[in-house]
Amino acid sequence: MKIALAQLNYHIGNFDQNLSKIRTAIEKAKQAKADIVVFAELAISGYPPRDFLEFEDFIKRCETTIAEIAESCVGITAIVGAPLRNDDEHGKGLFNTAFVLANGEIKQVVKKTLLPNYDIFDEYRYFEPNRTFDIVEYKAKKLAITICEDLWNLGNHPLYKINPMDELFRYNPDVMINIAASPFHYDQAKVRKEILLANVSKYKLPLFYVNHVGAQTELLFDGGSLVINAKGEIVEELAYFEEDFKVFDVGNLNVQHTKKETPSKIALIHDGLVMGVKNYFLKLGFNKAILGLSGGIDSAVTAVIAAEALGAKNVRCVLLPSEFSSDHSVNDARDLAENLGSPYEIVPIKGGYQSICESLKKQFEGTSFDITEENIQARIRGVILMALSNKFGYILLNTSNKSEAAVGYGTLYGDMNGGLSVLGDVYKTDVFALAKYINREKEIIPQNSIVKPPSAELRPDQKDTDSLPDYAILDEILFQYIEKRKGPKDLILMGFEESLVKRILKLVNTNEYKRYQTSPVLRVSQKAFGMGRRMPIVAKYLS
Amino acid sequence: MKIALAQLNYHIGNFDQNLSKIRTAIEKAKQAKADIVVFAELAISGYPPRDFLEFEDFIKRCETTIAEIAESCVGITAIVGAPLRNDDEHGKGLFNTAFVLANGEIKQVVKKTLLPNYDIFDEYRYFEPNRTFDIVEYKAKKLAITICEDLWNLGNHPLYKINPMDELFRYNPDVMINIAASPFHYDQAKVRKEILLANVSKYKLPLFYVNHVGAQTELLFDGGSLVINAKGEIVEELAYFEEDFKVFDVGNLNVQHTKKETPSKIALIHDGLVMGVKNYFLKLGFNKAILGLSGGIDSAVTAVIAAEALGAKNVRCVLLPSEFSSDHSVNDARDLAENLGSPYEIVPIKGGYQSICESLKKQFEGTSFDITEENIQARIRGVILMALSNKFGYILLNTSNKSEAAVGYGTLYGDMNGGLSVLGDVYKTDVFALAKYINREKEIIPQNSIVKPPSAELRPDQKDTDSLPDYAILDEILFQYIEKRKGPKDLILMGFEESLVKRILKLVNTNEYKRYQTSPVLRVSQKAFGMGRRMPIVAKYLS
Repeated sequence: MKIALAQLNYHIGNFDQNLSKIRTAIEKAKQAKADIVVFAELAISGYPPRDFLEFEDFIKRCETTIAEIAESCVGITAIVGAPLRNDDEHGKGLFNTAFVLANGEIKQVVKKTLLPNYDIFDEYRYFEPNRTFDIVEYKAKKLAITICEDLWNLGNHPLYKINPMDELFRYNPDVMINIAASPFHYDQAKVRKEILLANVSKYKLPLFYVNHVGAQTELLFDGGSLVINAKGEIVEELAYFEEDFKVFDVGNLNVQHTKKETPSKIALIHDGLVMGVKNYFLKLGFNKAILGLSGGIDSAVTAVIAAEALGAKNVRCVLLPSEFSSDHSVNDARDLAENLGSPYEIVPIKGGYQSICESLKKQFEGTSFDITEENIQARIRGVILMALSNKFGYILLNTSNKSEAAVGYGTLYGDMNGGLSVLGDVYKTDVFALAKYINREKEIIPQNSIVKPPSAELRPDQKDTDSLPDYAILDEILFQYIEKRKGPKDLILMGFEESLVKRILKLVNTNEYKRYQTSPVLRVSQKAFGMGRRMPIVAKYLS
Repeated sequence: MKIALAQLNYHIGNFDQNLSKIRTAIEKAKQAKADIVVFAELAISGYPPRDFLEFEDFIKRCETTIAEIAESCVGITAIVGAPLRNDDEHGKGLFNTAFVLANGEIKQVVKKTLLPNYDIFDEYRYFEPNRTFDIVEYKAKKLAITICEDLWNLGNHPLYKINPMDELFRYNPDVMINIAASPFHYDQAKVRKEILLANVSKYKLPLFYVNHVGAQTELLFDGGSLVINAKGEIVEELAYFEEDFKVFDVGNLNVQHTKKETPSKIALIHDGLVMGVKNYFLKLGFNKAILGLSGGIDSAVTAVIAAEALGAKNVRCVLLPSEFSSDHSVNDARDLAENLGSPYEIVPIKGGYQSICESLKKQFEGTSFDITEENIQARIRGVILMALSNKFGYILLNTSNKSEAAVGYGTLYGDMNGGLSVLGDVYKTDVFALAKYINREKEIIPQNSIVKPPSAELRPDQKDTDSLPDYAILDEILFQYIEKRKGPKDLILMGFEESLVKRILKLVNTNEYKRYQTSPVLRVSQKAFGMGRRMPIVAKYLS
């Protein structure tokens, strides 16, 4: 028996395109004489379809598309994910389902049992958990089909009371198949591999695992579909961050690949971000980005990633010096654009800034330069960048990093503008590491942008460290609070100074309102700002 | 037996203040010789605490606070909502729990069974559902205690497979007590009353129902706690939109109140919005609002609501005429500010606008006036308003209505700026109705603002109807799509023109990115933009 794995990049709600991709893969599988071709979880709709699942019209489109795919399944069986209506009068209206399509029709359905409802997951919002277990029999083989999370409830993850694979194991299956939508973070591929290997080790069955690839707004899917033989050897790892298709013979699951090096955390983040930017533009039908280049490291790294994703010529760099910008800032920004080969121009903000101050002369009489004037400068930049975006059809990229976003070190409606935040889940210390990674073969980001002390340059001689601790310390506190959910007492026990801990946690919590109004953030960590971190704004806790 | 209902306005994470309010109510209940005093669901933490529930430190603060409240419970029993740890190694880490406090300690706990996980609710994200059922016995009475949703699974709402009150009914209880956090929308009080009456009608038991009151960012809680006797008569309805406290004798549950008139939908929306603005400022520690007054109806209604919430003197109105603003706009805005008694000033945007155009002269050479120039004007207004906000400590109010927000008729980082959207869940047709309601006794909003054709005044002779259908038609299409989740086919069957339907639904879906970046919206309908409506940005469905 031959099983094909189709690791594809779907587009949420784009039924025509998803259908076309799936049909092409079915034809390829037929040509390769595969018996079964396996697609990812909710492949039909894209993942996650979110509240579109509450629209009857959307569900009907899923059903029509499944029927159309079934028509192509003659001489081959396809396993493909889509929502299925729940006929029971009780419970949620849908099941998250693997459709087994053969002989031109729906042969069988397998429903998801374990519904993740944490972090970025909302599956229990839409789906009823499965409670019945059946094996799929095909050409004298028994297939134990599960959906993503269904394989994740091994001993170390006791979130659920049931283990679907234990139930299926009673039928003496020959093969495990798991269809998944497993979002990327920089540790996820490692964790995922461990979990899948642990399943093989427990059940002594070969496993065929098919993941999504591509980005859906903030969520990145890294692919890396796997085949593991019954001995627990990885037979093959499909491509990371791109589509892939491979066929395997169940009777001959010898290790095909030379063991892939696990890329470093920074390389993974880099590749994920490039894919995220590329997919955001592609799926929205845009191909050109614009951004403000300050001469600092955040906008430099953002520009490089955008250039890799879209081509350097499609990244328009705008240098927006203020009266407080140093010459080296303009030079560093210009050097970067020239190194990249991206178009750049200089649009000074002094005129706009002075004009706003002039308009408010009466109101501001007797007041002195403060954060207000700093924000006006950042907002004039925002107005100029958005004007170019509107006039010429660019998407503006947000260049804030996670450290800044965490403590609110940025101007709402100013430098926090943009359709997509590229670095909003990357701490400043990792932005430095990304810059070094980018420069690993030759200097693309000017060394000066990397070594000079970070500054917003919104007042004379300003440095980030005027109001924030060193990033090494700040980032560790933020990581412990945001990713690890440590409290003030834990942090103090870890050796951080009490007043600093309190100040930082207060900054994080009181700046929730700013993050609420910023763009989606490409998610590369276990806890990114956005849909996976849901905080009240009007709260009084550690604030 | 006497039961006191304490309907209080909690603040999320503000343990000290919540504790103090609860203790004061316990003292009041003692003075009134009550045997039991009942507080709302998750009163200790405020509702919804969202991801703070994932922080060990936050849970410890809940536990400490419960212990402190227990100390006050000598000679009286308190029933109060808080999270409780789940000791089982499987499942979510917490239960949503009613603590029964007596004799200085925790006497018993009752856990929530039905966990809403739709619309604005995320309870299954944090809580394990209860599976065991116990009655609480106190002074020879058997109390059937449930938590909010636990009473909502009557025949017409088959979302769950179990009905907790059926389980408790087996113990022959004497009284039903329900502690709740039931968020307001303009139909909710009616629906809630029907559900509670249906429970009484089914079990023939008196019901004591305690709800939250006050606002938590976008969520409004209208109070309206209820006592219903076994005959199904409403004994008393506690206050709407404000705190209340009342004591009842279980042996004498005769109807005390004169039947309250149900306020109109528009009156409810009005009262909810006023409470929402008041609570947002109060709980964030602000007392002054700023907004741009255009002379149009949206900013006028927003200003009036803000003035009712904060006092007219605390609402600074800024008139920001452009070269396309008509004289009547400035006059109408001025008249409104004068009618209200709010401070106002005129800050023309021409200088800022021209300065930005001048900065981009080279880039824009050969292009003609388009949406870009319209947006620049709106963004200059945004810069000026935020500068005043930053300099003098105002919160800027967003004045967009739901119709505009739905179709993206507004400038991101411009007129969509603000810390809170007051009218973002109110369709334009209802904004007109609100204006008439506000003027019911005397003209506060100038008649001209109500009768003139809506216009953004960002180009010569612009009208909203240049690019949008009449609001009566637009709003009905939007309501059917957003609130009722109707698809294009349904809408066409309802008689709307096909090309119009397609255009409007496309506008709604492709403008998700704008709504993602706007402030929280005070929720007054069953489906508001924000936490209760979760849509992908990078999708291709009806778009």
